[in-house]
Amino acid sequence: MSRIVMKFGGTSVGNTERIRNVAKRVIGETAKGHEIVVVVSAMGKTTDELLRLAEDLSAEPSKREMDMLLSTGEQVTSALLTMSLQHMGQDAVSFTGWQAGIGTESVHRNARIEHIDTIRIEQALSAGKVIVIAGFQGLDAFGEITTLGRGGSDTTAVAIAASILADRCDIYTDVDGIYTSDPRYIEGARKLQELSYDEMLELANLGAGVLHPRAVEFAKNFCLPLSVRSSLSEETGTILLEEPTLEKNLIVRGVAFEPEIVRITIAYEVPFNGSLAKIFTMLARYHINVDIIVQSIMEGIQPSVSFSIKKEDFAETIHILKSNKADLGYQLANFEEGLAKVSIVGSGMVSNPGVAAQMFDRLRKEEIAVKMVSTSEIKVSVVIPEIDMLKATNALHDEFGLAVVRV
Amino acid sequence: MSRIVMKFGGTSVGNTERIRNVAKRVIGETAKGHEIVVVVSAMGKTTDELLRLAEDLSAEPSKREMDMLLSTGEQVTSALLTMSLQHMGQDAVSFTGWQAGIGTESVHRNARIEHIDTIRIEQALSAGKVIVIAGFQGLDAFGEITTLGRGGSDTTAVAIAASILADRCDIYTDVDGIYTSDPRYIEGARKLQELSYDEMLELANLGAGVLHPRAVEFAKNFCLPLSVRSSLSEETGTILLEEPTLEKNLIVRGVAFEPEIVRITIAYEVPFNGSLAKIFTMLARYHINVDIIVQSIMEGIQPSVSFSIKKEDFAETIHILKSNKADLGYQLANFEEGLAKVSIVGSGMVSNPGVAAQMFDRLRKEEIAVKMVSTSEIKVSVVIPEIDMLKATNALHDEFGLAVVRV
Repeated sequence: MSRIVMKFGGTSVGNTERIRNVAKRVIGETAKGHEIVVVVSAMGKTTDELLRLAEDLSAEPSKREMDMLLSTGEQVTSALLTMSLQHMGQDAVSFTGWQAGIGTESVHRNARIEHIDTIRIEQALSAGKVIVIAGFQGLDAFGEITTLGRGGSDTTAVAIAASILADRCDIYTDVDGIYTSDPRYIEGARKLQELSYDEMLELANLGAGVLHPRAVEFAKNFCLPLSVRSSLSEETGTILLEEPTLEKNLIVRGVAFEPEIVRITIAYEVPFNGSLAKIFTMLARYHINVDIIVQSIMEGIQPSVSFSIKKEDFAETIHILKSNKADLGYQLANFEEGLAKVSIVGSGMVSNPGVAAQMFDRLRKEEIAVKMVSTSEIKVSVVIPEIDMLKATNALHDEFGLAVVRV
Repeated sequence: MSRIVMKFGGTSVGNTERIRNVAKRVIGETAKGHEIVVVVSAMGKTTDELLRLAEDLSAEPSKREMDMLLSTGEQVTSALLTMSLQHMGQDAVSFTGWQAGIGTESVHRNARIEHIDTIRIEQALSAGKVIVIAGFQGLDAFGEITTLGRGGSDTTAVAIAASILADRCDIYTDVDGIYTSDPRYIEGARKLQELSYDEMLELANLGAGVLHPRAVEFAKNFCLPLSVRSSLSEETGTILLEEPTLEKNLIVRGVAFEPEIVRITIAYEVPFNGSLAKIFTMLARYHINVDIIVQSIMEGIQPSVSFSIKKEDFAETIHILKSNKADLGYQLANFEEGLAKVSIVGSGMVSNPGVAAQMFDRLRKEEIAVKMVSTSEIKVSVVIPEIDMLKATNALHDEFGLAVVRV
């Protein structure tokens, strides 16, 4: 007998027909003798509908009230799925986040789980019940309902799995696993059987939106096997582990891309160490997400710093720079729009020098200009013209042999 | 400065436009310097939609899960109204039933409030906030969400008002007060300025669906002035008090009617004291609501008991009687369908003998057959042919001078 946490996203529980299918799948697992805890998201468009109501009443609704509002969506799904399970003869009980013992920090709309009191879960499991927990939510120390922000239900599932020492956590979603690249755009992109937590973290941060980074971090910290699979098919998905044992030969496991990047360059007359901190502190205060930062100080060349941001933050960034020019003490700012970021990710890169060189070489052969570079132990990102984004991704996908299965 | 609890029903908060209007009305009261607690129902059709989802998944969903499901409706309204208030510059905070400290017995779908811990409400009032409480719900001693059944939000409002020693509780609804009779059917029915709790209790129990009896009882126990008024107009509604001071001359204050009544008569060979208890205990166990009971034991006539029930319970009642014939020990049962109940209600009846006689006399003049009679200190009910229901109501409304205002 294993303990398994199953998480179903909004599409998987989008209507009563799908909720019934989820119930059947859950019963399929209990029939194997497993103890099951289910975590659910709000039904399909529920959250959007609630957001629309809120927007209609207030241009900037308070975060506390948004949490009160939005947390109802998951509660509805948890009750409905429980009814469906009971109707099929499976003893079950639903819990809100606070009933499940999920304690968070005192922050609204983006709270972190601080602790989980598993007593009610353990009691219900002992009584042979399937537990259906409303994802995405918790309670702070002041008795306020909080929500966990984007990917919150994934985080709930992984945190619950870790706290009840589950054998694994299965994330059921509308894709059937993690791909080497986005199959909608990249020919030959294929599903990976396994992936390391770190690789997934890089891919998730690069916009492979299947799993929220926070959920992956949680799984990594507790060495919890995490699978991503489709709620519509019986196929095995992708399993996240500390160290994949399959497809070991793959040095690069994924190629990610992100359009709509803008590069901003600031130049100074004099060295600018203090000013540099000032700029990025200021941008952080305005929640501008700065990605790649490249500093260049060379003899005889004006000192400068370049950084990349998302296009959606462009106008605000320029405004912040302009209105604080005196304070920031820079001399010249220019920018380049129409850029994209392409990244290769793979744990094998650490022990295989030359991967970056191979990447640059291929891009050169494809005649793609590299504007910025950023590297980590398991990732190399380049900023290139947006027009070349898919060409570059396809080329790198091919270059690192991702389309062909070589076990 | 007064403390006022304002309760808004589902129609009054049916869409964002109406929620905005409610917010304006609340701010109108705070502008007068009052401390305000608002209690809200679920928006218009929300509950029906949730019920439909539940029905689609289970023919008989568990009551606990229904409470988990349905309690979200009021939570949504409370958050939305709070956002609207905040947007208009009024400091406000929403509470679920459990955040408002509402403790109930451990019963689902029809729980009674047992105690209210007002600490969070008092704190928020001290901080100058309007509090918006999700009606209809509470928490039992085991941490389970419960709901209060029909009229539950009224009960929440009155119970909160009593526990925070409010000066009054205003129930805003889609009618503008309590009428002498149903104005949709009875010509000349008019709004009452005042009504005693007891009169309202009789009227509520007789199907005047504006206020739930439980809420009225609560108000009566705490001598809490309770007003029923329209959320759409500025008109004063009807105020419920221990003893009305206006319209004192009215001996009868209301004429209520209820169609679809069935009379059942059971006859015995022998005296049946024990058996009588058995029948009504059994019917109660099956939740059959028995209304009027008439027993007749006369020399030389077969002992019998007649009682009235609602048509919707008819089939089940007959089934219970038939399948327990041996146990119940009766000899003969007959019934009469197509009946209705018409009642006159008024506190003044206690000190004015002859009111019942006046009622029977008028019905006789109208050639309406009286099948059963039931009296209390402030009410006389008759069961008559359903076909004569409105005719009787109109006649009695006229007979007791209800259509004419005599102050």
